[in-house]
Amino acid sequence: MFRRTDEVKVLRDPVHGYIHVEYEVIWQCINAKWMQRLRRIRQLGGAHMVYHAADHSRFQHSLGVYEIVRRMVTEVQDLADSLSEREKVTVMLAGLMHDIGHGPYSHAFEAVTPVSHEEYTCEIIEQDPELRGYMEACAPGLSREVADVIRHRSANPILPQLVSAQLDADRMDYLLRDAYFTGTKYGVFDLERLLRTLRVSDGRLVVKESGVYAVEYYIMARYHMYWQVYYHPIARSYESLIAQLFVRLRDLAEAGQFPHTIPEFEPLAARRKLTLDEYFVLDEYTCSYGFQLLSRCSDPVTADLASRLRDRRLFDYAEGTPENIEKITEKLKKHGYDPKYYLAHQAVRQRPYEPYSGKRENAVWIRMHGGEIRELSAASSIVASLIKAPLLSDNRVFFPALEADHQ
Amino acid sequence: MFRRTDEVKVLRDPVHGYIHVEYEVIWQCINAKWMQRLRRIRQLGGAHMVYHAADHSRFQHSLGVYEIVRRMVTEVQDLADSLSEREKVTVMLAGLMHDIGHGPYSHAFEAVTPVSHEEYTCEIIEQDPELRGYMEACAPGLSREVADVIRHRSANPILPQLVSAQLDADRMDYLLRDAYFTGTKYGVFDLERLLRTLRVSDGRLVVKESGVYAVEYYIMARYHMYWQVYYHPIARSYESLIAQLFVRLRDLAEAGQFPHTIPEFEPLAARRKLTLDEYFVLDEYTCSYGFQLLSRCSDPVTADLASRLRDRRLFDYAEGTPENIEKITEKLKKHGYDPKYYLAHQAVRQRPYEPYSGKRENAVWIRMHGGEIRELSAASSIVASLIKAPLLSDNRVFFPALEADHQ
Amino acid sequence: MFRRTDEVKVLRDPVHGYIHVEYEVIWQCINAKWMQRLRRIRQLGGAHMVYHAADHSRFQHSLGVYEIVRRMVTEVQDLADSLSEREKVTVMLAGLMHDIGHGPYSHAFEAVTPVSHEEYTCEIIEQDPELRGYMEACAPGLSREVADVIRHRSANPILPQLVSAQLDADRMDYLLRDAYFTGTKYGVFDLERLLRTLRVSDGRLVVKESGVYAVEYYIMARYHMYWQVYYHPIARSYESLIAQLFVRLRDLAEAGQFPHTIPEFEPLAARRKLTLDEYFVLDEYTCSYGFQLLSRCSDPVTADLASRLRDRRLFDYAEGTPENIEKITEKLKKHGYDPKYYLAHQAVRQRPYEPYSGKRENAVWIRMHGGEIRELSAASSIVASLIKAPLLSDNRVFFPALEADHQ
Amino acid sequence: MFRRTDEVKVLRDPVHGYIHVEYEVIWQCINAKWMQRLRRIRQLGGAHMVYHAADHSRFQHSLGVYEIVRRMVTEVQDLADSLSEREKVTVMLAGLMHDIGHGPYSHAFEAVTPVSHEEYTCEIIEQDPELRGYMEACAPGLSREVADVIRHRSANPILPQLVSAQLDADRMDYLLRDAYFTGTKYGVFDLERLLRTLRVSDGRLVVKESGVYAVEYYIMARYHMYWQVYYHPIARSYESLIAQLFVRLRDLAEAGQFPHTIPEFEPLAARRKLTLDEYFVLDEYTCSYGFQLLSRCSDPVTADLASRLRDRRLFDYAEGTPENIEKITEKLKKHGYDPKYYLAHQAVRQRPYEPYSGKRENAVWIRMHGGEIRELSAASSIVASLIKAPLLSDNRVFFPALEADHQ
Repeated sequence: MFRRTDEVKVLRDPVHGYIHVEYEVIWQCINAKWMQRLRRIRQLGGAHMVYHAADHSRFQHSLGVYEIVRRMVTEVQDLADSLSEREKVTVMLAGLMHDIGHGPYSHAFEAVTPVSHEEYTCEIIEQDPELRGYMEACAPGLSREVADVIRHRSANPILPQLVSAQLDADRMDYLLRDAYFTGTKYGVFDLERLLRTLRVSDGRLVVKESGVYAVEYYIMARYHMYWQVYYHPIARSYESLIAQLFVRLRDLAEAGQFPHTIPEFEPLAARRKLTLDEYFVLDEYTCSYGFQLLSRCSDPVTADLASRLRDRRLFDYAEGTPENIEKITEKLKKHGYDPKYYLAHQAVRQRPYEPYSGKRENAVWIRMHGGEIRELSAASSIVASLIKAPLLSDNRVFFPALEADHQ
Repeated sequence: MFRRTDEVKVLRDPVHGYIHVEYEVIWQCINAKWMQRLRRIRQLGGAHMVYHAADHSRFQHSLGVYEIVRRMVTEVQDLADSLSEREKVTVMLAGLMHDIGHGPYSHAFEAVTPVSHEEYTCEIIEQDPELRGYMEACAPGLSREVADVIRHRSANPILPQLVSAQLDADRMDYLLRDAYFTGTKYGVFDLERLLRTLRVSDGRLVVKESGVYAVEYYIMARYHMYWQVYYHPIARSYESLIAQLFVRLRDLAEAGQFPHTIPEFEPLAARRKLTLDEYFVLDEYTCSYGFQLLSRCSDPVTADLASRLRDRRLFDYAEGTPENIEKITEKLKKHGYDPKYYLAHQAVRQRPYEPYSGKRENAVWIRMHGGEIRELSAASSIVASLIKAPLLSDNRVFFPALEADHQ
Repeated sequence: MFRRTDEVKVLRDPVHGYIHVEYEVIWQCINAKWMQRLRRIRQLGGAHMVYHAADHSRFQHSLGVYEIVRRMVTEVQDLADSLSEREKVTVMLAGLMHDIGHGPYSHAFEAVTPVSHEEYTCEIIEQDPELRGYMEACAPGLSREVADVIRHRSANPILPQLVSAQLDADRMDYLLRDAYFTGTKYGVFDLERLLRTLRVSDGRLVVKESGVYAVEYYIMARYHMYWQVYYHPIARSYESLIAQLFVRLRDLAEAGQFPHTIPEFEPLAARRKLTLDEYFVLDEYTCSYGFQLLSRCSDPVTADLASRLRDRRLFDYAEGTPENIEKITEKLKKHGYDPKYYLAHQAVRQRPYEPYSGKRENAVWIRMHGGEIRELSAASSIVASLIKAPLLSDNRVFFPALEADHQ
Repeated sequence: MFRRTDEVKVLRDPVHGYIHVEYEVIWQCINAKWMQRLRRIRQLGGAHMVYHAADHSRFQHSLGVYEIVRRMVTEVQDLADSLSEREKVTVMLAGLMHDIGHGPYSHAFEAVTPVSHEEYTCEIIEQDPELRGYMEACAPGLSREVADVIRHRSANPILPQLVSAQLDADRMDYLLRDAYFTGTKYGVFDLERLLRTLRVSDGRLVVKESGVYAVEYYIMARYHMYWQVYYHPIARSYESLIAQLFVRLRDLAEAGQFPHTIPEFEPLAARRKLTLDEYFVLDEYTCSYGFQLLSRCSDPVTADLASRLRDRRLFDYAEGTPENIEKITEKLKKHGYDPKYYLAHQAVRQRPYEPYSGKRENAVWIRMHGGEIRELSAASSIVASLIKAPLLSDNRVFFPALEADHQ
């Protein structure tokens, strides 16, 4: 029923060695234009401004997630035995397309659209004629089932766990991939060991006790990647510039002065949901070109913010205390900068592991030697102590360097 | 005289570990907008269509070349002792900016402009007010000297050899970097060993005999990267699409029908040299946006070629024999495709090592244990035999898949 | 005064790339017979019975420690500036020879000799005519100063910190090296980052706040290596076999029945301190040959234990509860095994980081952005929570498989 | 029929990630004492005197060869489909035990015994009660069939090709492994690519044309490993010392003066074949202990040669020209050294690829896109040119440093 490719197709990948494709429908979806669009969206938002080598796209991340899911349903015996072929193809497609609705600049952009990327993802999977066509031709109802994995509404509740949970193919790929492309060593953990110790118990994905060390490493890897990469103040400075530019564009739009050279930004300024056609065009290349055009805009604030983005003249930052904010606000005003557009305040926080809070899928489950299943923090004294750690947060205020420019 | 940065500044790099910056003027140039523009130009032309992870930019390659030059003038004792500080800073800047005049899509684009990227490079270095300003403020005459390294006209002839010769920092970085980002193992050679065996003799960069094996590996690495990456038929298929699109745009321009939605392409269609301002804007983001717009163009040939580029619906290929070309031409016509725009013919050729042909800088020189200096092929029996190998060439014709689309 | 080698000598090393030797006296000591003896002592005791690739010797670890110390005194600016050349050579030699007094099978053997390996180390450094000769010829008093680093009695208290502290060249090398040779990923941390953030403050080695993440990783790496490698029950099973064999040999010796085929074991059976000449001969090759001979010994217990060691027929293990011990003891007796020789009970424990307990050298010190110096657990919330974790311990009893042999 | 282990057993391996064992009989053989003996034999003869980290054993190499054979019969579809389960188990066992008859110090020792290691290998496989017992209990006749693979006399001629040919699991593992443990980059080639392009045609193992580049790299890797590692003059110097020591021991034996402290060496001095029991004991640990004892021997030549081996005071070397040999012989005599024991002359030679010379198994076969099968040098212009290269040879004479000791 599920047509195989003539030979296994392989794509060379620096993180996984090869990506293996065995089903025709997966090959078709990879080559569909919405998947190819992800080549034009970077995996990291602002962090490529800190780590100059981190130019990798969501397209390659998507292939990586697919490959990990494929290995799970093939190599984890409990999954290989219990899932039907249809379920396997479904969850592999869900892994492949879980980010298909992502907009440019990662989460920076989500702040300026009223719709989450997950919503777009399901819409594209179920409504794009090309993708939907491939899936329905392969097995009627398939596109809905793939979207249901994303929505956490699958008939078989194990499927969403493979793609999106605290220990899932998505995180596994991005930690390894972001570590590889930034050149840091923080995201490296033992994928082989993790895959080898995955089991299914009571309809849940669990890790054998002998894999607890690998999970601890994975938890630490995630924690350190957040602070060293994703939440790096320079990354956030870049992302705050994007946000501030759109604050300005909205004000211009409301004042009827939106610069129409870049019509693709108009729905964002108008705060309305984009149609799929509009959304398709709005990749990072379009945005970058937009910043390029806006850097020559007649509105000086817009032009300044856009050329800062283009030329990486980023905002400076300081601790986001009330005193600092007040002091900087004063200074900005004195220098003629409007703080509405030139001051951004943001606090981020992160715990190594979020303790179990009632929802099963929020936990990592460990199967002890004796068979008992425990939530991770009841199986690892390291994790138990980590969740008692005070919540680490980083509170910053971003603003243009005022006197001597420095970095 | 050459102001140092307060502390050594370091940038994390997956290939070299860290990029180290010790001079203020180098830090300033890295942060200048023309250097930052290289973030928007990929290192590889069409090859990222074969190797999905190869999204790396010329910006990071430029930092890598700089770092290798920096290590050469610091760690190769003969260079550390014989070069003045001014010469060291000059050649490091030349390494950093040697690609600053590169246009989008690597060599694919050079085919459509009448000016070489080296010419733009020298122009930018000598004329951009920002870059020129930093260099002249640091040492009057410096910008000219940096450009002279690129032009192979330095007072000290060793300087250009570090940046551009058969065994230079440029090739060393791109082989390692392209191997890292494609995930192939073909470009890996022993950089540490090579650097350790570099010496200066008679004003030439030479390799000690004990480094011959490392050079042989480097030669093989380069050869295999050409065939496996740079000349991969899928990469060339993508590049041929770009070329064909511009063939069409020129014909439209001559017919007065150039689509003015993307004015940035106009000088290319008109075959005139771009001003630096025009050139600055014409990065890969702008081009990609251009293809996006052109895919909705009223001219069906333009729209088709542009949407092929955007969605990676590449041309098929076959051996470029006269019979094949004739046969395919007929078929194309029958299906209503104009071969002028839908058939591209291209042969590439490559030898592992170009034998010495009179010009000193065309050779790799080896210093034998006894002190004698020999051209590489006189020092390595492997290389001696390789240059006798028949010139390997690959002759292809590219065209749209006509019946069932396949890949 | 300190004679340099003609050229920098380099030794290829898989962990560090190259080991660099610049001083004649260091080159001489590397080639001395006591250093060469370390080629015949493995770095890991029983763990090479778990990880089949972990055959690496203390010789290569010693070179690795030396190399890290060399980089510290060269690349950490505060050390490069404040240490005299004599101090630098002294601490490099101490790094090189810190393990020169190690006996076979790592800590397993220390249990059967009344003298610590540190004591032997100082004795060898100060008394071996060859080593002492090289050092005194180079600078009178040097051998004493080198030994004083090992003894933590240096005039300059920073020197011992480089070689032996909670964050020292010894641990840094063994974590990386043991990870490389076992093939685990647990011991990997970011050496480059750590070295880059080391400073000297108040006569102490400190880490800049920006290096805290690297320290956290190092702490986790150490913790996981203990549980996954050093304390692995199969490793401890092997080590317990060695200990049990010597329990038997001592009883035989007391009964006047010591098997004299392997006279090298006699002092151990007699519980007396070995002379340096005796100690020199007693490497792992001699021991292995001894086990080979003893496997044909007329005493059946000795022969059995020795052939188990030779052929890797290791003891089984179970949790070391009083009930288990009682039950197993009964069973052993029923099968004719004397529990004195056939039952070993051992508990190990390990905490990720030992909190500061009064002695300055027991702590890792962090220099905060503001200049204040804090003990690690006051600078890292991760570490603060880890030291509150209950002490993890592993309590095992080891004994021969009784029914069906399995593993 | 072929009993599986309860779960797949895995052994962590730095080169292959994991070694996977699925059959009970393979697990039993791995744990047999003759296989465990290979832990006491190094993979490299003298080369660990050049590369200090190359302490790896033949045991781990044997596991690696087994793993590659296992992947071949599982992942190469043509083999997975055409071989019976019995053939698969047979060839995996042959891969595992192909080196089981290896004596100490690799090929250095073969020079001093009249029997090849292959002969011992077959004898052990067919006659050791433990190994034979496991195999015959599993399937009567199996031990003979395993030995027949080693002897190149299998009923199915494809089996020996997997283990021993110009492109076999043995070479594939040792190149990768020796590169990993020496820390050189010379032995690295693309194992994944090679495995992916293996096919069976006409009862021969062939490589698809798209794998030619990987084969070229493999050929170069092998060539460079020979010159940089296996034939390194310091490695050969060490091996020549072993040979010279046995020349002396034989002369002593003939004169009735053999030093009986180390009886294990007696059969070697007597030039007779060792029994399996004698051979079992004669591992590198026994030899090393033997050298230790002989270094205190009353015969001064024996004592000197043995202590040189122990302490790595190796012979010097010079080009092996007749003039050099004559000159050095004179000098040695003048200094009281007997050239019979103190001068060793040896030439080695190596070609990148041995051209096809009539025997099918001497060639690497390529299946061209069109289906035609060609010998490698007819498919690769690189290899075609390499086999025309003059045979590279290295002719050396080894002797003690006479004046100032240096290295």
